[in-house]
Order: sequence, then C-alpha cells, then structure tokens
Amino acid sequence: MSGDHDGLRLRRTQSVTRAEEIQAEELKVRRSQPDKPCHKPRDSLFSWTSGFDNFTGFINWAFLLLFMGGVRLLLENFIKYGIRVDPIQWVYVLTGQDESGAEHPSLILLIYSLVPVVLCLLTEKGLSVDIIPNGPGMLAHVVNLLVLVMIPIVAIHLKDGFSLIGASVVSCLYCVLFLKLWSYIQVNMWCRMQQKHAKANNSFRRQSLSYSNLPMSESRNSLNEDDHEPHLVQYPDNLNLKDLFYFMLAPTLCYELNFPKTSRIRKRFLIKRIIEVVIGIQLIMAVIQQYMVPSIKNSLLPFSNMDITKASERLLKLAIPNHLAWLCFFYITFHSFMNLMGELLHFADRNFYCDWWNANNIDTFWRTWNMPVHRWAVRHIYLPVVGMGYGRLTASVFVFFISAFFHEYMVSVPLKTFKIWAFMGMMGQIPLSLISRYMEKNFGPKMGNVVVWASIIMGQPLCIMMYYHDYVITHYGQALLEDYSHV
Amino acid sequence: MSGDHDGLRLRRTQSVTRAEEIQAEELKVRRSQPDKPCHKPRDSLFSWTSGFDNFTGFINWAFLLLFMGGVRLLLENFIKYGIRVDPIQWVYVLTGQDESGAEHPSLILLIYSLVPVVLCLLTEKGLSVDIIPNGPGMLAHVVNLLVLVMIPIVAIHLKDGFSLIGASVVSCLYCVLFLKLWSYIQVNMWCRMQQKHAKANNSFRRQSLSYSNLPMSESRNSLNEDDHEPHLVQYPDNLNLKDLFYFMLAPTLCYELNFPKTSRIRKRFLIKRIIEVVIGIQLIMAVIQQYMVPSIKNSLLPFSNMDITKASERLLKLAIPNHLAWLCFFYITFHSFMNLMGELLHFADRNFYCDWWNANNIDTFWRTWNMPVHRWAVRHIYLPVVGMGYGRLTASVFVFFISAFFHEYMVSVPLKTFKIWAFMGMMGQIPLSLISRYMEKNFGPKMGNVVVWASIIMGQPLCIMMYYHDYVITHYGQALLEDYSHV
Repeated sequence: MSGDHDGLRLRRTQSVTRAEEIQAEELKVRRSQPDKPCHKPRDSLFSWTSGFDNFTGFINWAFLLLFMGGVRLLLENFIKYGIRVDPIQWVYVLTGQDESGAEHPSLILLIYSLVPVVLCLLTEKGLSVDIIPNGPGMLAHVVNLLVLVMIPIVAIHLKDGFSLIGASVVSCLYCVLFLKLWSYIQVNMWCRMQQKHAKANNSFRRQSLSYSNLPMSESRNSLNEDDHEPHLVQYPDNLNLKDLFYFMLAPTLCYELNFPKTSRIRKRFLIKRIIEVVIGIQLIMAVIQQYMVPSIKNSLLPFSNMDITKASERLLKLAIPNHLAWLCFFYITFHSFMNLMGELLHFADRNFYCDWWNANNIDTFWRTWNMPVHRWAVRHIYLPVVGMGYGRLTASVFVFFISAFFHEYMVSVPLKTFKIWAFMGMMGQIPLSLISRYMEKNFGPKMGNVVVWASIIMGQPLCIMMYYHDYVITHYGQALLEDYSHV
Repeated sequence: MSGDHDGLRLRRTQSVTRAEEIQAEELKVRRSQPDKPCHKPRDSLFSWTSGFDNFTGFINWAFLLLFMGGVRLLLENFIKYGIRVDPIQWVYVLTGQDESGAEHPSLILLIYSLVPVVLCLLTEKGLSVDIIPNGPGMLAHVVNLLVLVMIPIVAIHLKDGFSLIGASVVSCLYCVLFLKLWSYIQVNMWCRMQQKHAKANNSFRRQSLSYSNLPMSESRNSLNEDDHEPHLVQYPDNLNLKDLFYFMLAPTLCYELNFPKTSRIRKRFLIKRIIEVVIGIQLIMAVIQQYMVPSIKNSLLPFSNMDITKASERLLKLAIPNHLAWLCFFYITFHSFMNLMGELLHFADRNFYCDWWNANNIDTFWRTWNMPVHRWAVRHIYLPVVGMGYGRLTASVFVFFISAFFHEYMVSVPLKTFKIWAFMGMMGQIPLSLISRYMEKNFGPKMGNVVVWASIIMGQPLCIMMYYHDYVITHYGQALLEDYSHV
C-alpha cells in the first residue's frame, strides 16, 4: 500500500514537474514575443488556492482603528461635557472628608485595623507557650476574625461621613487583613502541630534510645535545624511584631516563616514604580470622572425602562472607559504597587499575576489574574479541604463560594446596598466557564480567549449599572425615576 | 583576548550554576519546613527581566474591542437616525434617472463608449496594412483618446440628469478605456516596429544570403513562429473585434496578444464571487446611506468655521464607516469582481493586488494595492520613458503625475467641482512617503505600516469633507452656511 502510495506521489510529482516545465517553456516562448507579455497564471491572494496567509498588517490596522476610535470618543466627550476632572474633589473622596467637616472616618478605620492584628499576635504568643489552650485560642482567633470582618459593615452603616472610595479602600483593607491573618494563624498552627508531633516522637525515641545510650540533641528545634543553614527562622521565634508587620506589608496573602529575599533595592526600578503609581491613580480618577460618571448617569433611564437597544448602547459606551480604568487599576495594583512594596521590603517573589490575557477559558483566567488570592485559596482552603478527605470538586466549590462572598462584601459594604449582583456575577462564572470551554474545544483556543475577554469587558459594566440603578432607587426613591421619564 | 573572554564566560557560567545550586538547595531546605512555603524568587511578567513576551491575547482583545465599538456605533446610529437604507433610491442613483424623468444619461454614455473602441481598431487595421501611414495614424489615435477623455467632462457638465454615482461609474469606465486603448495601441506599435525591423533584417539577410543560395523561410512571421508552439497568435492576426472586446472585458489594463488562459470555469468559485459582488454592493450602499451621509452633513459647519476640535471629532467619526466602505469596495472590486470576470473569460492571471496591508511605506502601498494600474504604469510609462534615455526619477515623476491627473479626473468630473483636493492628496503622498520611510527606518517596519494605515484611514475622509464643503458652497452658496450658523 505504502509503496503504491509513494509511486502515485512520485508520478504526481513527475506530472507536476512536467506541467511546470511546460508552463516555464510556454512562458519562455511568450516572453520572446514582440508584445512584451506581463501576465502569467496565478491566483489572487485572498483565494484559498494561493496559500497566502500573511495578514500581520491587519493587526496594526486593528490597533490603529482602536486608537483612533479612542481619540474620537475623547474629543466627543470634551465637546459634550467640557473638562470634568477636578483634583480638589479627589482629596475629599480619598480622605472621606466632606467639604465642611474635618472628620476622616476612613483614616480612623485604617488605623484601627492595627488592633485585631496585635490581638492575633498576642493570642498566637499565648498559644505557643501553652498559656492559652488550643481550643479557646482558636475560638479567640475566630471571634477576632469575625469582628474584623464586621467592623467595616457596622462602621460604614452607622457613620455617614464615608465617601464611596474611602469606604471601598477600608473594605478592601479589612478583606486583605482577614485573609492574611487566616494564613498567619493556620501556618502557626501547622508549625505548632509539627512541633508537638516532633516532641511526641522525640520522647518516644528518647525512651527507645535510652537503652542504647546514644548522644541526643537537646534543643527544642533540633530536628529541623541544619547546621549549614543557620539563617532559617524557626517557630516560635517568628512570633514578634516586626515579623508580623513585615507580613502585613508584604505583597502576598500567604504567610511563611522565611520569605525569599532580594539582596538589594534597585533604585531605578523603585522610582519607575513610584511614578507609575502616582500617575496611574490620577489617570484612573480622571477616566472615572470624565467618562464613566456621565455614561453611568445617562444609562439610568434606559436601564430602568428596560429599553434594550438604548441600554445596550449605553452598556457598550460604558464598557470601554470602564475596561480602560480596570486595565489601569490592574497594572497599578498588581504590577506597580506590589512590585514597589516588594522592592522596599526585599520581597523576592514577584509572581503577582500570570499571563491571564492569553487565558483560553474562564477557569484559567481566575487562576492567573490574581496570584496572591489564588495562591491563598489553594494553600489555605483547597488543599486543607482536600486533606480533610473531601473531594476536589467540594474543595473547588468551597473556594468559589468564599471568593463570591468577598466579592459581594467588597462591593456591597461601601455601597451600603445589600444587593446580590456581584454574588450573581460570580455565580455567572459557572455557565461562562462552560461556554468558554465549549468554544475553546469546538472553535479553537482563540475563540475561548475571545469569550474570556468579552466577559471581562462586558461583565463589569453590567454589574456597575445594576448597582448604580439600585443605589439610586434605594437612596432617592422611585420618584426620581418617574421625574426623569416625564422630562 | 578570546581565550580570556572564554575563561571569563566559563567562570561566569560556573558561578551562575553555583548560584542556582545554592538557590535550589535553599528551596529544598525551605520546602522541608513545617510552614509549607509557597514563595520563590521570580520577576513579574511585565518586568523586562522576566523575558516574557507572549501577549497574543491582546490581539484578540483589540479585535473584540473594535467589534464592540462598531456595534455601539451601529446602535447609536439607529437610535439617532432610524433606518435610512432605502433600496428604491439605489435604482435612481445607479441609473441616473430622476424620479420623474425616464432618461438614463449614464447608460447612454456607457453604450457610447463602444465608438472610440471601434475607431481605435479601425485605425490599427489601417496602420497594419499600410493604408494609413504611421504619422497620421498615431495622430488619429491621440485625437481619439483625447476625445474619449473629454466626453464625460462635457456630457456631465451639459446634461443635468446624472446622478453622482452614475457619473462616477461613467468617469471610471472612460478612464479604464483610455488606459486599455493606450496599452492596445502601444503593444500593436511594438509588434509593427518589430515586424518592420524583421522585414528590414530579412531583406538585408536575403541580399547577403543570396550569394550563398541557402534555403529561406518565406512567411512574414516565420522568424517568430516556432513549429512546436502553433497556438500563439501573431500580429496582425490579433486585430479583430473579438480579440479587442476580450481585452476590453478582461480584468487587466495591459494588452498582450496571447493572454494566459485557464482550462475550465470553476462553477463554485464563480457562484461565490457573484454572491460577493451582489451582497457587497448592497453593503457599501447601506454603509454610505446610513453612516457616511449623516456624518458628512454634520461635518459641514465645524469644517467651515475651522473649529478644529469639532472638525477632528467629525473627521474621526467619518473615518470609520468610510474606511469600512473602502475595504468593502476594495474586496468587491479587486477580488470578487475581477476574479468573476477572469473566471468567465478564462483569464488566468489573477494578480490584481499584492499584500498591501503589510506595506511598510507609502511607496510599497502604491505599488501593491492596485496591480492592474501599477503594471500598466510600469509597462507603458515608466519603462518607455526610461527606454527613451531619461533617468528613473524622471520616469517615476511622470507616472506619479499621470496617476495624480486620473485621480483628480475621477473625482472632479462626477462632482462637477474642479477643486484640486484629490490632486493635492496625491501630491501629499511625497512627504508621506518620506515620513513613512523615516518611521520604517528609525522605529521598525511596524511603525511604517502604521503610518501607511493612518494615511489610508484618515486621508480619504479629509478629501471627502473638503470636496463636500466646496460642493455645497459652489452649488448652494455661502448663504446656506450662514443660515446654518444662525441656528
């Protein structure tokens, strides 16, 4: 069979060569004519038969069109609204101070966050020297963490002086503290358990070894201490304020006793990151003031009236500046700010994000865009749950629900509206994940990537509009909407 | 020196390996700790030091954003203007019939174009059999071609029944006829000269050979006729209506006596091209009616008042649908229509365009986007001018000016406004070419490609707005503009 096949191919090749020879001969003869022929048989490049596939120029085309569309939207916005960027407002917004009062409730809450951190350290100290027994100690930790989570909810609801952004920063910080302290407590627990296990082993071994009279190391940490690695900190030497505050400031949510360190601070790198943070925050502020606020306000009525064409147009109009602000926010937070903190603290692990922009399905995106949270979830929820004997699916569901809770928390608390749009958005990731996997499988990884991007670009403005709509209805009542529609 | 260098490199490699070993060792020791470490030293992907460069996901991102921006503009347009596409208007527009009258001046001109073609053939016939001497014959050709070019100018100016598109089609057809007949005349001239040369040689050889009494071929064409290639048509057998009409319909501007032919008509290919032409024309019409007309009308006032911000915004708004229409037009004309004609006529050379979308400078773009014209210009202007002993630069300038003239012709004649914006646009290609070459040289081929795209996308709407502005002022007077500005 194979021989036949080869023979066929050979004959075919020969006939192709023969055809080419004839063609070349014909061309030669035609070339010798006095009419200077310039045509020869060939296909157009867009025909499949031409085999041409270099369309890289269209990538530049796409980016240029995108840029021009952006410039036009900019111009249109300036013509319609003038310059709305007002840096003086930012000060009020950031500090949470209203224009008359001198109160800074956000700042007070930020400073108050030290209390649960110190309480946590004291409890750990007590646990480590057996002053506090294990049961009550863990209970104290749980109560401390629950109180920590409740503080922003209660404070923001009772006090009126919070600005939206001030309240967001506070909620975000308390979330991060919660995750960091959880990690701190769990890692110290692992160390304590290992120590107890070692002690038990030790005493058992001491009993069994006493018969043979061999020399034994006496030190409490001796089992883990290598002589040629004297710089590793061992439990409970890590239980001090300096170590805890280093962890609180470090750009990670996963505690460990010996973080990898860099040898020096790169000054140029540091300065670049500082400039990026300063400029980036102002850029985000400007985009929000200039583009998002008018778009969100204009979207209220079509959204309330369920006018699908107009609402879609508003949604798409909002999607672009929102997406730009989000990309800026991502870069500023996950690259500039975290690298800045890492550089200052000699923290060597800068894996704050993976290449989520190439993600071919939603799952990959969630696993790669926020590495500190992903790593925390795997180390402190997924693996312990699996370790307790539950299945991998149960563990994933656990991670997913805790993640959904904190997303809801970080949106609902500052907005003071306990709607479940963010939670629903997270739940929506399940069918989206199925869709993106289906697209990836049936239409290639490129289509999967497109679905991921579409969900990022469209999902957020949808949630924003839902929250804004409910926020207005809750705080200004149905009357306002009716007023609007009479105009 | 080299040995030293190698030694240095070797030492460096060794030290790197040693450093890696230490790192691996450290990691191993850290891994054995009870705190389950999960951090290791590494750089963020956006840092140069990470060496990461896979950002292909952002290509999908760009195309998706572009698509979404397009959909939004579509929705905005429908909300603002409703559906403006009106196929009944197309009939009037295409035939040039106004709603009352039954005259089709465009159709009459299209049919009249047969006259100069037949005149040209008759003159050639006369020249070939020496009824008409060379001098008067060439003069007749020149007069015929000049009259051909003048017909649309005079007819469109004298008659009022022409629609804009009808007049454009007529001007375009007469341009194409001019170029085709030029090529036909010149190729036949080459053949005639070669024949005379051969005759002279022949008689000279006959004289010189008569002494040696060798046998001689008698046929007039014998010198060029190979016995094993009997199918090649020789001058003056090509001078007949069938051959001339084949050339007039063939998708090329360069005449030759023996075009390469395909052996069969591919039916599926043909049907696809027909569908593309039918749908494509309607798409272009719809884009023009729905998107371009409102944008052009809205742009009048800012353009007249020299309001740069608003005019730029209008220009960018017009650029997108205009560019889309142009891309459609390009595909329909240079791929669908020309391949359709080629398939019907068994015309084998389908090289109607090269990959201009990858062009890194303006010159390459002009050489690749319109191959029939480019090949015509090289064969019938550039090479003859160079052949006459002029330099390559002179020849290029010649080509450039003739090209600029015909661009101006195809715009000014239908619009009946003899402004020089199209001519200026062509002249603007010279500085643009310098800019694109500079960008290509100093910022890489990618930036050159971006400049080419920018000039394609922005240049056309700029010209359109200038023409429209002048058209309105010429035909409706300054009064209209003043009326506008009072509103």
